[in-house]
Amino acid sequence: MKNQQWKLKARPTGMVSRENFDFVEAAAPSINDGEALVEVQYVSLDPAMRGWLNEGKSYVPPVGIGEVMRAIGVGKVVEAPKNDPALKVGDFVVGMTGIQLLSSAPAKAWTKIDPSLMALPRWLGILGMPGMTAYFGLLDIGGPIKAGETLVVSAASGAVGAVVGQIGKIHGMRVVGIAGGGDKCRYIVDELGFDAAIDYKHDDVRAKMREACPQGIDVYFDNVGGEILDLALASLRKKARVVICGAISQYNSPSFVGPKNYMSLLVNRARMEGFVVFDYAPRYAEAAMAIAKWHKEGKLKAREDIVDGIAQFPEALQKLFRGENFGKLVLKL
Amino acid sequence: MKNQQWKLKARPTGMVSRENFDFVEAAAPSINDGEALVEVQYVSLDPAMRGWLNEGKSYVPPVGIGEVMRAIGVGKVVEAPKNDPALKVGDFVVGMTGIQLLSSAPAKAWTKIDPSLMALPRWLGILGMPGMTAYFGLLDIGGPIKAGETLVVSAASGAVGAVVGQIGKIHGMRVVGIAGGGDKCRYIVDELGFDAAIDYKHDDVRAKMREACPQGIDVYFDNVGGEILDLALASLRKKARVVICGAISQYNSPSFVGPKNYMSLLVNRARMEGFVVFDYAPRYAEAAMAIAKWHKEGKLKAREDIVDGIAQFPEALQKLFRGENFGKLVLKL
Repeated sequence: MKNQQWKLKARPTGMVSRENFDFVEAAAPSINDGEALVEVQYVSLDPAMRGWLNEGKSYVPPVGIGEVMRAIGVGKVVEAPKNDPALKVGDFVVGMTGIQLLSSAPAKAWTKIDPSLMALPRWLGILGMPGMTAYFGLLDIGGPIKAGETLVVSAASGAVGAVVGQIGKIHGMRVVGIAGGGDKCRYIVDELGFDAAIDYKHDDVRAKMREACPQGIDVYFDNVGGEILDLALASLRKKARVVICGAISQYNSPSFVGPKNYMSLLVNRARMEGFVVFDYAPRYAEAAMAIAKWHKEGKLKAREDIVDGIAQFPEALQKLFRGENFGKLVLKL
Repeated sequence: MKNQQWKLKARPTGMVSRENFDFVEAAAPSINDGEALVEVQYVSLDPAMRGWLNEGKSYVPPVGIGEVMRAIGVGKVVEAPKNDPALKVGDFVVGMTGIQLLSSAPAKAWTKIDPSLMALPRWLGILGMPGMTAYFGLLDIGGPIKAGETLVVSAASGAVGAVVGQIGKIHGMRVVGIAGGGDKCRYIVDELGFDAAIDYKHDDVRAKMREACPQGIDVYFDNVGGEILDLALASLRKKARVVICGAISQYNSPSFVGPKNYMSLLVNRARMEGFVVFDYAPRYAEAAMAIAKWHKEGKLKAREDIVDGIAQFPEALQKLFRGENFGKLVLKL
């Protein structure tokens, strides 16, 4: 079996495109002692990928020029590690596969999963990095949350936002989601049970936010940055918490814009805090168990947007940054 | 005795000036039952005054057009409240005097002070709002602080910044101050014992900050906003705390600029938090006792910049916003 891989050719300035990558064929990797070879079935496409393409110091090193594009994926073990009974051929695993058909890594770098518990793409969504991000971002960084508090979340139908809002509802918060377009707005209210939705493409966000949050905002969970972050800052309540999870509106912009209303933090004795989900790895099991339970009880729904074919990778990534995906974006290899 | 008062005539856009105020004479106020009449001797000029002049919701209502300009002052009781032995003629008090020679208010609105413990202007500085702001901002919002951590403070020779840095040193931190000009920089290092100074008017702040904070910044206490806030954000260490105390570089600017490097909060799992010192009123005594003790021990020095004459009020305020004061700015009436 041949491998197919997407490698970084040149760092993007502005929007990512096909020109930033090389799509190459390669021989199936030979595995070293203790490594498992995995046939990758789905890879997760996440906003964080844009940051991984930038030069410079961050919470992880950037993807190097000529390296396979970094991605979390789920797949099946096709060659088990020698002398390690932890993984067998046919086992399903999650790990840092990269955007490629075949991926090898030491056995301990793979997490074995049970696909009978939940469909494979969902292990990249509500049980994957987005689910963990939502859980710890809201409960730990945005916390302590209280029933009756008002939670606003941007990119609210997205992989992280949808889980944030639903966990907020489970805890008795008033939840307002910001999303692009009528379909997504109806979905978060009608399907996910949010109290209100703001359509940033068509509504007057400032007026709608005031109307949807008559008491102001206790927790703002930000995935987008830019103007929406500023409007949320202008609506904070005393002792509010602003969770900085992402800034997708800015990632492909040549000039990053900061929140000019940040002095609202002073007036409202509020805090703005960032986090990196990988820090919570020792507690992933706690989050996964809670999310799986809520999902089983019908309190936390999942939705995936699956793009078919490894060849579609650059366009699928553009779809993400244009906000055109509806649900957790996954590439089926 | 006649009263003289500075009243707000028109809200400033951009830098405050004499045109925004009326300087008027008035009869000495007659006092109501329970009120004390105070002859104001010194008033405090603070960056927060600029915010009080703006229309709109904040942590206190704006000064109204035609009202005496709000200010904290210290003075002597010249008419004691009837039937209230708490204040006698000749007592010295601190309170919201406004910019005027004579000020009346209910007895409970005045705090009696002992001028033999510390000179009058100092009750507006290290023992006044700036001292309280420094104490709670650093220890509560910036805390918990640890010996060996790196503290950077802007407007470091100012009323708040000088106290912040000295409290940092008392707690064993490495303290770096940012100030404008060689005199102020020499003062904070040679007189106040800071470890390093950055002259934002003449140094390459980015390079100097890197050099002065080889481990990065654990606590950044911000009084200025703008570009310096951005440079500090770019140098944060993991789990850093950014204390938002003020943004004097922006107050008189027509377009408020936000910190474009705020995503450093995410990368560094850091937080940025604001506060309003008035919330700490129940704990002022704790701060005042600590500061007075450190001052007596020679560990915390005070410096005032005294402008003489109530007629100088608008120009003295401009001096503050131009960064031309050296030490706590006080107007002697």
